[in-house]
Amino acid sequence: MEKVNLSEKFGLFNEYWTPKIAGELNGQQVKLAKLKGEFVWHKHDEEDELFFVVKGILQMEFRDKTVFINQGEFLIVPKGTEHRPVAEEEVWVMLFEPSSTLNTGDAESNLTQFHLDRI
Amino acid sequence: MEKVNLSEKFGLFNEYWTPKIAGELNGQQVKLAKLKGEFVWHKHDEEDELFFVVKGILQMEFRDKTVFINQGEFLIVPKGTEHRPVAEEEVWVMLFEPSSTLNTGDAESNLTQFHLDRI
Repeated sequence: MEKVNLSEKFGLFNEYWTPKIAGELNGQQVKLAKLKGEFVWHKHDEEDELFFVVKGILQMEFRDKTVFINQGEFLIVPKGTEHRPVAEEEVWVMLFEPSSTLNTGDAESNLTQFHLDRI
Repeated sequence: MEKVNLSEKFGLFNEYWTPKIAGELNGQQVKLAKLKGEFVWHKHDEEDELFFVVKGILQMEFRDKTVFINQGEFLIVPKGTEHRPVAEEEVWVMLFEPSSTLNTGDAESNLTQFHLDRI
């Protein structure tokens, strides 16, 4: 049982759009990711997904609006909701979602990460 | 679907040891709490519990050690593990845990919060 220091963990990797597993509890995972640029439109049919912004400003695009999530803020994207994360500048996020969640949801592509490293 | 700003939410209440529900996803809840002083020793038989420190230093006491959790750090307390949160100075925490989790676990007392407000 070890505590996790976010700054330290974020210092261990530089790849974008490759979530790392930083914790597991109750069938859920805590993931850390660095984002930059535009991701793909996708949805998760069965999983709600929480995005907590640790650094930067995350633009979460929906079909009918865009939500700007700043450092110290979080947004829960309900299952079944199409969304696209966009980061004009580098963004660090902490995700909280079921262990079963695939990063690209229903939109498998070369961005899909089938295996996530633990950090 | 509204984003949650932690500073704003923490500005809305002052009571200690009374978690507020700030979000729900996948049968789990995100709770915000202000802590000061010593809580009760307890465990959760079925629920792992994540403590993310937003402000201050949280001392998490276990029967065999104490972990100091600083701002920007989190600790997952596995189910069945006796623990006691202690905050010498005011601490703000964000909790992730199943919606079923009772704050005092197996140690019901006058500190037990059977009903949590949403914030």
